[in-house]
This record gives sequence, structure tokens and C-alpha cells, in this order.
Amino acid sequence: MERPRHQGMAKNTYMRWRLPLVCLLWEVAMIVLFGVFVRFDPEADAHWEEEKREKNLTSDIENDFYFRYPSFQDVHVMIFVGFGFLMTFLKRYGFGAVGFNFLLAAFGIQWALLMQGWFHSFKNGKILIGVENLINADFCVGSVCIAFGAILGKTSPIQLLVMTLFQVTLFAVNEYILLNLLHVKDAGGSMTIHTFGAYFGLMVTRILYRPNLEQSKDKQGSVYHSDLFAMIGTLYLWMYWPSFNSAISEHGDAQHRAAINTYCSLAACVLTTMAFSSMLQKKGKLDMVHIQNATLAGGVAVGTSAEMMLTPYGSLIVGFICGIVSTVGYVYLTPFLESRLHIQDTCGIHNLHAMPGLIGGIVGAITAAAATEDVYGKEGFIKAFDFTGTYQTRTPSVQGGFQAAGIVVSLLMALAGGALVGAILKLPVWGDAAAENCFEDDIYWEVPEDEEGDAYHMHNPDKATSP
Amino acid sequence: MERPRHQGMAKNTYMRWRLPLVCLLWEVAMIVLFGVFVRFDPEADAHWEEEKREKNLTSDIENDFYFRYPSFQDVHVMIFVGFGFLMTFLKRYGFGAVGFNFLLAAFGIQWALLMQGWFHSFKNGKILIGVENLINADFCVGSVCIAFGAILGKTSPIQLLVMTLFQVTLFAVNEYILLNLLHVKDAGGSMTIHTFGAYFGLMVTRILYRPNLEQSKDKQGSVYHSDLFAMIGTLYLWMYWPSFNSAISEHGDAQHRAAINTYCSLAACVLTTMAFSSMLQKKGKLDMVHIQNATLAGGVAVGTSAEMMLTPYGSLIVGFICGIVSTVGYVYLTPFLESRLHIQDTCGIHNLHAMPGLIGGIVGAITAAAATEDVYGKEGFIKAFDFTGTYQTRTPSVQGGFQAAGIVVSLLMALAGGALVGAILKLPVWGDAAAENCFEDDIYWEVPEDEEGDAYHMHNPDKATSP
Amino acid sequence: MERPRHQGMAKNTYMRWRLPLVCLLWEVAMIVLFGVFVRFDPEADAHWEEEKREKNLTSDIENDFYFRYPSFQDVHVMIFVGFGFLMTFLKRYGFGAVGFNFLLAAFGIQWALLMQGWFHSFKNGKILIGVENLINADFCVGSVCIAFGAILGKTSPIQLLVMTLFQVTLFAVNEYILLNLLHVKDAGGSMTIHTFGAYFGLMVTRILYRPNLEQSKDKQGSVYHSDLFAMIGTLYLWMYWPSFNSAISEHGDAQHRAAINTYCSLAACVLTTMAFSSMLQKKGKLDMVHIQNATLAGGVAVGTSAEMMLTPYGSLIVGFICGIVSTVGYVYLTPFLESRLHIQDTCGIHNLHAMPGLIGGIVGAITAAAATEDVYGKEGFIKAFDFTGTYQTRTPSVQGGFQAAGIVVSLLMALAGGALVGAILKLPVWGDAAAENCFEDDIYWEVPEDEEGDAYHMHNPDKATSP
Repeated sequence: MERPRHQGMAKNTYMRWRLPLVCLLWEVAMIVLFGVFVRFDPEADAHWEEEKREKNLTSDIENDFYFRYPSFQDVHVMIFVGFGFLMTFLKRYGFGAVGFNFLLAAFGIQWALLMQGWFHSFKNGKILIGVENLINADFCVGSVCIAFGAILGKTSPIQLLVMTLFQVTLFAVNEYILLNLLHVKDAGGSMTIHTFGAYFGLMVTRILYRPNLEQSKDKQGSVYHSDLFAMIGTLYLWMYWPSFNSAISEHGDAQHRAAINTYCSLAACVLTTMAFSSMLQKKGKLDMVHIQNATLAGGVAVGTSAEMMLTPYGSLIVGFICGIVSTVGYVYLTPFLESRLHIQDTCGIHNLHAMPGLIGGIVGAITAAAATEDVYGKEGFIKAFDFTGTYQTRTPSVQGGFQAAGIVVSLLMALAGGALVGAILKLPVWGDAAAENCFEDDIYWEVPEDEEGDAYHMHNPDKATSP
Repeated sequence: MERPRHQGMAKNTYMRWRLPLVCLLWEVAMIVLFGVFVRFDPEADAHWEEEKREKNLTSDIENDFYFRYPSFQDVHVMIFVGFGFLMTFLKRYGFGAVGFNFLLAAFGIQWALLMQGWFHSFKNGKILIGVENLINADFCVGSVCIAFGAILGKTSPIQLLVMTLFQVTLFAVNEYILLNLLHVKDAGGSMTIHTFGAYFGLMVTRILYRPNLEQSKDKQGSVYHSDLFAMIGTLYLWMYWPSFNSAISEHGDAQHRAAINTYCSLAACVLTTMAFSSMLQKKGKLDMVHIQNATLAGGVAVGTSAEMMLTPYGSLIVGFICGIVSTVGYVYLTPFLESRLHIQDTCGIHNLHAMPGLIGGIVGAITAAAATEDVYGKEGFIKAFDFTGTYQTRTPSVQGGFQAAGIVVSLLMALAGGALVGAILKLPVWGDAAAENCFEDDIYWEVPEDEEGDAYHMHNPDKATSP
Repeated sequence: MERPRHQGMAKNTYMRWRLPLVCLLWEVAMIVLFGVFVRFDPEADAHWEEEKREKNLTSDIENDFYFRYPSFQDVHVMIFVGFGFLMTFLKRYGFGAVGFNFLLAAFGIQWALLMQGWFHSFKNGKILIGVENLINADFCVGSVCIAFGAILGKTSPIQLLVMTLFQVTLFAVNEYILLNLLHVKDAGGSMTIHTFGAYFGLMVTRILYRPNLEQSKDKQGSVYHSDLFAMIGTLYLWMYWPSFNSAISEHGDAQHRAAINTYCSLAACVLTTMAFSSMLQKKGKLDMVHIQNATLAGGVAVGTSAEMMLTPYGSLIVGFICGIVSTVGYVYLTPFLESRLHIQDTCGIHNLHAMPGLIGGIVGAITAAAATEDVYGKEGFIKAFDFTGTYQTRTPSVQGGFQAAGIVVSLLMALAGGALVGAILKLPVWGDAAAENCFEDDIYWEVPEDEEGDAYHMHNPDKATSP
């Protein structure tokens, strides 16, 4: 190859006018749309005193805020610190990981409030938002954070904003089909968030395939402290996942049960991840990539069923399996996907979200199909699956069938949507970096020229002068 | 310059007797005062069973603990991890940032419990404390953490303890004037916490002006990983700010609404911060200083109005504006303040707290003045502004006027108080470091002499010997 | 000494088959036992609607989930992030600190659910689990994390799993003796968690004494950034300790009071820790080891009494004393224990958990003995100490005596149990490293060969080739 070492500027990554333009334009659009459409839910509106009287509520504690706000905050941490720091494992892409995740999530939650609001909280021409909408917006953006994992280090912030716009839109449509048309249960989002988000991202990265990516191979690894930063993300995702899966379940036993099932599944998952991480490595040493990611698969895989009567041992089994599937995926599948299918999956979301998401959908379908009035109680049975109104006569096995249909729909929506958005992002106007400049913060960020920086740029001594 | 490179010891920074003396003396004073004055609030007292009967409460869940404890914990994280880590961006002042913040906050909350207690929870000669007092103490200390940001790296721990003593005192007085005498609403503290804390700190740093500070210029920057540590602080502040602004609002809709408004404002703020960070830099690259700080301005600026019917789009607009104001401040105002007004503001609190705090006060005044019974409902209107008793006849526009007066009072109290305290801290007995030793942990902390340390001290090979 | 520098492989630390075998075997055992024994508590079961009717509950908010879940999540963070990151202070053992803590805690909580379940939640042949069980399981594992602190860096992951199995078992037995047989109060676990966990760990490390440990002395220190990572652990432990001590207290005033007392104790502890850290060092500089650890002693030491009417000033006094005791311990006792008693205590758990745990037991005994109906109210008195049924006639002074007995029992159980488990762990089959390879992640983990790694391995240039 004749190319000089640092000619990344051959590609125009100059953001000065494009990024501000997109950010400001979209934020102005948000303000206008919020002005036209968004108002407070009765429980957050100053008219609440009247509402309380109408609904015969005797205490302020009956406000949904007190049922869901602690869970909301946990979910919020998962989206911004969890996903953000999980992706800081790359040695020179920590700013991009945390910073771009911050950017896309902050934009995405606004657009999600609108999209999901039109589908689910639209009354008399207004979207009425409360704490549950905030959780759902965070959930929706979670699927974008997942997709971001596949393309981490290879895209410009503008591409991420464009992707967020489209993905949130499609997410809301897919969610509407599942929850409202198919009447599927998916409180923790195995299908709507993980399956959808992961296959969407995998398709995008497939379309954006970079044949010369090995030119930045030296930057695709971690350093000692970046692996510790990533563990902050891992642990917050792991610890708060019970809140994630229970956040929008029905009040009372359903929230309680969802938290317990998730807790159990995640605990089992850690053990099998450690086991297989050691077993699949010749020297028998543990690999931080597995510990950072595969330990979380158990949370993904009970996303649909956690609020059902999965039972603690059922959860352990799911976690047991997913730790294995995910770790094996990192060792064998990721290299295969890259070399054969040209799917360059930076964070291995196929192992952490795609496969466990599918498993989660299947486990949910089975658990639903196996439900009986005996196990749930007569009232509990109706409440758990919301077999009321039009769905009064739906049987568990039919519900199982619809759950399975939900998996297929999510998968298809994700692949089609990802292909479309990938094609859009392939247009040469978005300012992504050349292959040899991928996984490098220096392209889009002011990076301090410090001692560590010196060490990093030691091959490039003319850059290492005083700041 | 003829001075030898390391002659910082010319100034006596030896803490061995002074720091312990101050710490122990003040803690003993706290114990004595707590012993004389502080008891449990009825809701935290073992007599609660009787209290419940008297108040006709049917369930333990009516205890204020369950309304506020989750928010309290979020606020607690903001004060200790949020502010602490936000200030770790300096390459060699991480111990001081986290450690001194820890010290001053731990002392400050005790003194705040007393000061605020005397003003607000004093009954029959005793201060009765419950979870709301803990939140308020954390709030009060938040204003000291803000002021600390201006003088970060330039003061001794003793100076910080002295400043905390005085600032907490003045904070409580100012808060009493605003909340009780002017009957101003300021649940998230745009005026009492941010405006007061920031201008107080700016005045202190002005008085402590160091003409030779450029001697430690090489230590005023960040390194790659210190910027990531700072992002931990940023994100926790950002994520938990909805809890901050809603923590002491009225039960029910007010807490709910405050959280939603803050969530919206912060989301918008990220977009405009990113836009202007890129736009104001010739190469169009994003600057971590802006991302770490200006993204938070939206939370500051709805501190007064978040619990009012600001509406989600109103919040977006406030966030939109503050991201811009704050980022522009970092680029143009901070250098100007330093060179022309001799205000050396280490963390740029003028941009993150002072200006957004003022904006927050103004937005609050306008929102209050614009309130109508139509928007709030008859009961909601009275509840939102506590127009009862003496204030039964106050109109929204009068309330707006008092809100505006609150801004002015906070500003004046801050400037006068800061000048006074600055003068006290200027006395040459507190053990602050010489200009060339600022921003350097080595002065007050045992610093490990490790590989990274070696790198740092490489100009100084005689220090790099074995530990 | 003639030994070559890196001959650690003389000891067989190869984990490839042993670690996976233990992990998988034990997880399978968990699944079987959960399948046989574990079901949902009525409040987490889908039959809850019927339960609600029976218990005459009018609202879902009466579900224990809403009383305890926020505290549970705080405790969860303390176990995984708190303990995990607290131990990352070692320069090259961050993966082991966070990763092995993750492994043992994830296994331990499952086994604890069973062990504690058999003792406390066993009905009709089934263990019924709800959110309180999750908290208790986390608590139990907390004692293992404490013991891990003593042997940090010197044991293989298999040893840790073996230790966890035995320690959780003994913990549950000891807890049963204290809470059920002696009817002792210990909601925050000064005795059951801290005293037991610490002396257990100290005995284990005594038995595993390594005479040549100074061979890895260069790795027993911290580096600048590892000290900052450790502060993440410290702060989360410090901030959430009020949740720890109040998590399983009675609903209402007891939870409320426990949080306030702990808040006060911890605040005082910071001041005296800083004072003595500076005072005991010739140069008067603060030592991060003290700040990271001794600041937490105040939380340990009110573990028993926080839910009692200790009063805020009583808490300040306890915190005041424990900051001193703990810091003095680090300076004088730890070296003494190592050189004279051959107790190699990596994290100094003797100072942070053992002594403060004992103090906490004593303070609890005194506080209980001093209780009067006047202070607690007639009903509050009975409720606080659960003087009902068999214990209807127990007096405060008798209760104090039983509390004191609880300390002795915990201590003896810990020492006997630690000796037994230490002996088991001494068997030469568990794959622990040689003395010169202690405190080194490289033995059990894939460690990135990066710039920083290069720096670290600079004495060993042949290892520093491309990854």
C-alpha cells in the first residue's frame, strides 16, 4: 500500500457546520412539535387535586410517580452510564463512546416521547406524558444504544443522529404492532428492544461494511484502565436490570416478580460466563470482553417472561443457557460473522442482544403458552396477560403463538429498517472517518495532549509537543 | 525568572497540626450542638405509632420517608459522586477534587442541619430532623461544592472548611429571607443554590486572585482518563437532576411534574451544547469541557420553575437557550473574566451555575407571574404557590415580582458574603500553596510513585525512585 | 536468592478445567435446589390479588416491593460496585478485584437465598422469596466480600468460590442463632455481617499465611488512577450506607430513623478520619488508604443501633470514635498484625470491619439496654425490640445482655469457621499463585498488552510485542 499513514482527512470529517446544523435543526423541530402536542399527564398536572377526587384516591402516594420513579432512575442510569461506559473499553474511543451515546440518547428520548406518545398517549389531540412515558422513551433509546454498539468507532455523530431519528420511528411502529395489534406482552423488551435493536444495528453495520478496517486494528483493543471503565458500565447494567424488566409492569406483584426473576437469571449467567470464558481459552484465563458483556445476557433473555410466572429456577435455567450462548458467540461467532458475512460488530451485540433477545422472545412465548389459571389464580391470569375486552377469549396457547409472531415481526422490521437506514448512512455526506482513523477520538474530539497521549502518539513525535 | 523550579515550600503548606485541629474542633462543636438541639422528626421517632393514630394515617407508606428517600439518595449521589468526580478532570488533582469535596460536604451537611434546622424545623427548643432535612442539608452543601469549583486547586483544605462554615451560614440566612420573608418558590434552588453558590465562589476567587497562576498552567489541563472520570460526575449530575429539582416539591403532581420538566430541559441542553461546542471551534471538534459542564445548565435553569406548569416545551426552550449560553460562556467569557476582571474560575462555574442560575430565577419569576387558575385549577393554583394564610391574596404578578426580588437578594448576599469570606481566606495562616504548586495533589496528599507517576515526574528523576 | 524472576508457573495456576467445572457444577446444583425449593412470596406471586383481598389491602402500594426496592437497589450497588471498586486500588489487580467480587457475589446470593430461606422463609416445604430475601442475600454476600478483602490478590477464583460456599452456610447458621435463638436486633449487621465477615476473613488469611509475600511488594501499592477507581467504591458505599442499615428495618419510623442515624455517623467519621490521617503522618499529608476505608467505619459501627433511638448526636459520637479507631488501625495495627501475628490483611478489613463491627455490637447492646418506654413510647418500645410472644417479658437490660452474647457468638463462629475454611483452602489443589505472582491480574486474566501495559512490563521487553 502506498498510502501515507495519516491521510484520514482524505475523507471530510470536518463537523463544524454540519453537526451544529443537524443538532439545532432537530432541536427546533422538537420544540415546535412539543409545543403543538405535548402536555402533562393528569398525574403530573396541577389539576391533579381534582383528578384525585374523581378517582377517589385518598393519598398522594397513589400517584404513579411513587410506583415507578425509582425504577425510572435506574433505567436512566443504564442508558447513560450503563451503555455509555460499557463502550469505553476501546483504548482511544472513550470520549466517543460516552459522548456520542449521550448525544444520541438525549435526542432520541425527545423524539421517542413524541413517536410513542402518538401511538399510546394521544388524547384529544395532545400527548399526555408522565413517568411511564419517560421510562418508555429511555427503553426506546436503549435499542438505539444497542445498535450503536455494532457501529461503534466507525460512524460520525451526524450518522448517529440520523440513525436515531429513523430507528426511534421504526421502533415505535414495531412496538405498536406488537403491543397493540398482536397484543403481545414484552415488558422488558426482549423483542421490542433487544431483538429489534440488535438486528437493526447488525444490518446497518453490514451495509456500512469497511473492507479495510484492519488498518485500525491496533486501536480496536482495550488498555488496562479502559477495561475498568467498561466494568462500570457492565455493573450498572447488571445491577439495575431488575429495574429495567420491572419498570413498566403492572403495579404490585408483577413488578415484584419481574425484579426477582431478573435477579436470578443474571446471577446464574455470571457463573456460566466465567466457566466458558475460561474453558474456551487455551491458557484458561478469563477474558474481560466476556465478563463485560456475556454476564448481561441473562437480563436480556428474561425481558419478556420476567413479569410472568417464570419462577426463580426457570430464571436460573435461562441465565445458565444465555451465559454459555453469549460467551461461545464471542469466541466463535463474531469472527465468523466478520470474515464470512462481513458483519463488523464492534461490541459484539449479536452475542449480547441479538441471540439472547431471540431466546427471550421464545422463552416468553413458551411461558405464556404454558400459563394456567392454577398457577396464576383466576384474577392473576387475566391481569397478567390482560385478557380483557377483545382479548377476553384468548387462550394461553394462542397467546404463545402471537408472542412467537412478535419475534418474527421484530426481526423483519429490524432487518428491513436496518437495510434502509444503512443505505442512507452510506451516502458520502455524513462525515464518517476513513478506515485507518476509525476507533480514534482524535477525529471528532479535542483530545488532551498529555503524558498518556504522548505515550499513545509516540510514533508521531511532532504531535507530542506541549499543549 | 530566577526562582528554582520547586520552591513551593516557601509557602507553609504543612497541615499536620492545623488540619486535624480544625477538623476535630469543629466535629466536637457539632456533637455538642447536636446534643443540645437535634432530635428526630415525629416520622422518624419511635413514637410514630402514636403520631399515626393522631394523624389518622392508615399505612406506614404515608411516612414521608417513602415519598422522598429515593430522591434523597439521588441528590446524595450528585453531591458526593457528581460534584466530586466532575472536578477530577484536572490531570493531577483528582485526589483533591474527590477528597476535599468529600471533606467539605461531610462537614457542611452537619452544619447545614443545624443552621437550616434553627430556621425551619425548630420546635420547643429542638430541631426535629427527617428525610427532608437531609435533602436540604445536601442542597445547602451543593452550593459550597459549586463555589469550590471556582477555587479548585488553589486552596488548602483548611480554607475549604472555613469557607464551608461561613457559606452554609449565609446560605441559610439567604434561604430564610427568600422562602420565608419573600415567600418565594425555589424548590430546585436556581436562586438559593446556584446563583448564590456561584457568585459567592466567584467573589472568593476574585479576592484570592493569583497573578502568577500561569506558573502552574501545565497542570490546569486534563489527561485522557481524567476526562473520563469527570464524565462519571457529569452523567450522574445529568441523570439525577430530575430528582434534585423534584426532591422537596409537594407530594404528588408537583414532584412528578418537576421531574418531567427537568428531564426535558436537560435533553434539549445536550443538543445545543454539542452544536455550539463544535461550531465555536475552528476544527469543528467537540470539547470535553463543554460536554462535561454545559450539558448540565438546563437542569440549573429550571430549578425554580420545574415544579410549576412550565410545560415540556417550555422546558425544552429553556434547555435550548442554556446549552448555548453556557458553551459560549466557556469559549468567550471565561478567558475574559480571567484576563480583565481577574476572576480565575477553575471549573467555569460562571457558565454552569451563575448564568444559568440567573436565567433560572428569571424563568421562575415569569412562570409564576404568568400562572392562572385556568392552567393550574383552583386548588392546584393555591397549592402550587402556597397562597394561603398571609399570602392568600397575593396575585401571580406580585409573586413574580417577589421571585425577581429573590434573585437580587441572592446575588447581593453572595457578592457581599463572598467578599467577606474571601478576605478571611486571604489571611496568610491557612496553608494554601504557592502559585507554581497549584493544581497538584502532591502538596496535600500522599501520591503513589508509580509508573504513571514516573511518567509525570519524568522531568524530576530524583523523585522517581522506588516507593 | 537464585530464583528466576518469573517462575510463578511453578505453581499450577491453570484454570481451564477446574474453574469451569466448579462454576458449572455449582450452578447446576443451584438450579436443582431452586427447582425443588424456591417459589415466589405471596407478594410476588400472581395470586397476589387474592392475597390482597384476604389481607384487606386497598392499594398495590402496600406491596413490600414499594417499601424496600429502592433500598435493595442501593444495597445491590454497594455489593457489586461498592466492594468491587473499593478493591481496585491495587495497581495491577483491578480485574481480579471487580471480576472475582462479581463472581463470588453472583454465586453467593443464590446460595444465600437457599440457606437463609431454609431458616427464615420456609413454608410447607417451599422457600418463598420476595424483595426482603434479595436484600438479605446481598447482605450475606457482603460478609464474603469483606472476607475477600483480607485475601485479595492471594487466592484463586476457585478458592473464592469454595470459601463463599462455606462462609454463606456459616453466616446463615450464625444469623439464625442471633436473630432467632438469641432474639438479637442487628438490622444493619454490625455483628452478623461485619464482625462475622471480618474475623472469618482474618482467620482465613492467617491460615493461608505467605512468608514470602514481600516478593510481590512492588505490586501491593496503588497508582494514581487506581486510587480514583477505588474512590468510586468508597463513595458508593458511603452514600448508600443509610440504605444498607435501614433496608430491612420495620416499615415506617424505623427505616426512617436508621437512615438518619447512619447519615450522621458517616458524616462525623469523615472529619476524624481526615484529622488523624494528616496527624499520623510526618509530612502531615492525607493518605488515600485512610480516606478510602476509614471514612466508612461510621456506617459499620451503627449497624446494630441505627434503627434504635440512638439519636443524631449519639451517631455523631460513634462516627467520631470510629474514624479515629480505624485510621489508627491502618497506621499502627495493620503492620503489627502482619509482622507479629502473621495476618496479611490486604485491604485492612480489621480496621474497617472488624473493630468497627465490634464497636457496633457494643453500641447496639448499650443502646438496647438503655431503652425506656419513655423514649420509645409504649407501642414503639415493643415494636422496636419485637418484645412480643415469647419475648413479651424481656427487659431492655436483658436484651442488652443478649446483644452482647450475639457479639461473642459471631466472633467465635467466625474464628472457628475461618480456621476450618482456611485449612480447606490450604490444600494444594485450588490453583493459587506463588508469592511473587500475587496481586497480579496476569495470572488469571487476559490482560491487554497496551501502552500502559508496556510501561508496566518495561522490565520485560519481550512481552511488550503486538497483541
